[in-house]
Amino acid sequence: MNKSFDDLLKKLATVEKKKVSVAVAQDSEVLLAVKAAKERNIADSILVGDADEIKKVADEIGMSLDGYEIIDVKDKIEAARTAVKLVSDGKADMYMKGLLDTKDFLRSVLDKEVGLRTGRPLSHVGVFEMEGVDHLLFLTDVAFVPYPTLEDKANIIRNTVEICEACGVENPKVAPLAAVEVVNPKMPETIEADELTKMNERGEIERCIVDGPLSLDLATVPEAAEHKGATGRKIVGDADVLLFPDIHAGNILYKGLVHFAKVKNGNLITGTAAPVILTSRSDSSEVKVYSLALGALVADSLKKNK
Amino acid sequence: MNKSFDDLLKKLATVEKKKVSVAVAQDSEVLLAVKAAKERNIADSILVGDADEIKKVADEIGMSLDGYEIIDVKDKIEAARTAVKLVSDGKADMYMKGLLDTKDFLRSVLDKEVGLRTGRPLSHVGVFEMEGVDHLLFLTDVAFVPYPTLEDKANIIRNTVEICEACGVENPKVAPLAAVEVVNPKMPETIEADELTKMNERGEIERCIVDGPLSLDLATVPEAAEHKGATGRKIVGDADVLLFPDIHAGNILYKGLVHFAKVKNGNLITGTAAPVILTSRSDSSEVKVYSLALGALVADSLKKNK
Repeated sequence: MNKSFDDLLKKLATVEKKKVSVAVAQDSEVLLAVKAAKERNIADSILVGDADEIKKVADEIGMSLDGYEIIDVKDKIEAARTAVKLVSDGKADMYMKGLLDTKDFLRSVLDKEVGLRTGRPLSHVGVFEMEGVDHLLFLTDVAFVPYPTLEDKANIIRNTVEICEACGVENPKVAPLAAVEVVNPKMPETIEADELTKMNERGEIERCIVDGPLSLDLATVPEAAEHKGATGRKIVGDADVLLFPDIHAGNILYKGLVHFAKVKNGNLITGTAAPVILTSRSDSSEVKVYSLALGALVADSLKKNK
Repeated sequence: MNKSFDDLLKKLATVEKKKVSVAVAQDSEVLLAVKAAKERNIADSILVGDADEIKKVADEIGMSLDGYEIIDVKDKIEAARTAVKLVSDGKADMYMKGLLDTKDFLRSVLDKEVGLRTGRPLSHVGVFEMEGVDHLLFLTDVAFVPYPTLEDKANIIRNTVEICEACGVENPKVAPLAAVEVVNPKMPETIEADELTKMNERGEIERCIVDGPLSLDLATVPEAAEHKGATGRKIVGDADVLLFPDIHAGNILYKGLVHFAKVKNGNLITGTAAPVILTSRSDSSEVKVYSLALGALVADSLKKNK
C-alpha cells in the first residue's frame, strides 16, 4: 500500500516514464511545474502553444527548453485541440491546462473528435497526505460537480476508485460524509449516503467498501470513532475516500486542510480516457508537481488495464 | 481586541465571577469541567440532579463537592426545569447540559414558563483560536440549524455578532462562505451570500461588515486573497465570522479543524436570554472549559447591556 507522496514517487520510478501534453504552455507557473516534473523524473512534456511566447517565458524564469518538444500553435483554442489530440492519439499520456480559460480547456477535453470522453461524467479528486492520518485520503468532489445527484455520486465513487487503485489502494473505504452519522429523513444527504451504501452492498458500486452517512471524525479519526462507540460500521476512522454532499462542503474543507493542516496534495480530473491536470493559479508548484505525479501513475494504470 | 483564549481568560478575571446552573449534573465529564472552571476562576456552579448520584460520581473522580451548591431533583426533566429556572430567575448566569438527552435539554431551554426564549431563533457558534490566524474565528452554524434560510442566516449573524462583541470583537467581519467568491445564479448559496451583504449595506444587519460569497481561503488567508487579486472587497483574508451555507459544510470543516489543525475552541448556543452550553461527549474537557469561559463573558456582556 502506498501511504505518502514519497511512496507514490518511488512507485513511479519503477514504471515507464510518461509524457504530458500541455495546452497553451506559455505560462511561467506551468513551465516551472513541467520543469520540476522532468527533473524529478516524473514526466516529460510536449509544450503546445505560441512558440515565441513559450521561449520568452522560459527565458524570464531561466529555464532551458532543451529536451522539450514544442509545437507552435498561436491560437489558444487550436493549441488546446492539438494538445488534447496528442493524448487521444496516444502520443502523450496525460493532458494539462496552461494559459487558457478553464471553460475552453474543458471544451477540448470533451471534444467529440479529439477529446478524452469516456461516456462517464467528469469529476475531481484531491489526493491528500496529511499529518495525523497514516494513509492517503482521496477527497471528492471539491471543485467540479456542484450538486451531485445520487447517480452522480455513484459515478464519482467509480471514478475515484480507479485513482485509488492506480495509487496502490485496493478496495478503498469510501465515506459519504454528512454532519451526522445516522440517517435523518430531514437530511437528504444522509438518505443518499445510505443509498450509496446499499448500492455498494448490492454490487452496483464495485471494488470498494462504502459506509455512510459518516461525520468527518468518525470517517478519519479512529479514536473519535471508538469514543463514540461506533459499532457494526465498516469504516471506523479509516476511510480512504471522503465523498462530499456538495461542492460547498467539499471546497470549504479542502481549503481548510490546505491552509491550516499539514498536508501535501495533488489533484486530477477523472472520468476521462487519460488523466487531466487542471491546477489553479492559487495552487503551489508542489501541488502542480504532485498532480503530474498522480497523472503519471494513473496513466500507467490505464495502460496496463487496456 | 481579544485574540486568544488566554486574552479572554484575562478579560474574564476583571469581571464579577459568574455562576453556571447544570441540568442533571451526575456526569463525570461535566463535573470535571465545572471543577476546572471553578479552579481557574471562570465560574462557580449550581449542580441540579440526583444528589446521591452526583456525590457518587464526584467520589469516583476524586472531586470534592465543597463550595458547590447541590439541588436534589431525581427526575431528569424536572431537574432541567429547575436548573433553567435558576437562570431565568437570575440566580445563575448560564445554563449547561449534563446527563440528559439533547432533546430534553433543549426543551427546557425553550420552555415558555421557565426557559430562556428571546423570540429569536437559536443558533450555535464555535469560537476558534487557530495557528495561522492572528485573531479569533467564530464559526456558525456547524451544529444546530441544518438548512438555514436567508432570514435564518440574517438571525444567525445577529446572534453571532453579540458573541463577538462579548469577546471584545467590535464590528466583526462576517464572511458567508461558498465554494466560490462570485455570485453564480446556479448556486443559491452565492445568491443568499450576496443578499446578506446587501442587507448589511442597507442596515438590516447591523454592527458588523458582511461580504460574501467568499471561499474559505479568501475569507481567512490574507496571502491567498492578495494572490487572487481580490479588489473592492471588504474582507481580504481577515474575516472574524465564518457563516456556512448549511450544517454539512459547517460541521465537516469544524471537525476537520478540530482534528487536523492546531486549535483551541469553545462552543455556545446563542439567541437565548442567557448563554447555553451544550457540549458533546466527544468534546475534550478543554473545549468544555473554554465553552464555560465564553458563557461567562457573554453573560457579563448581557448583564451590562440590560
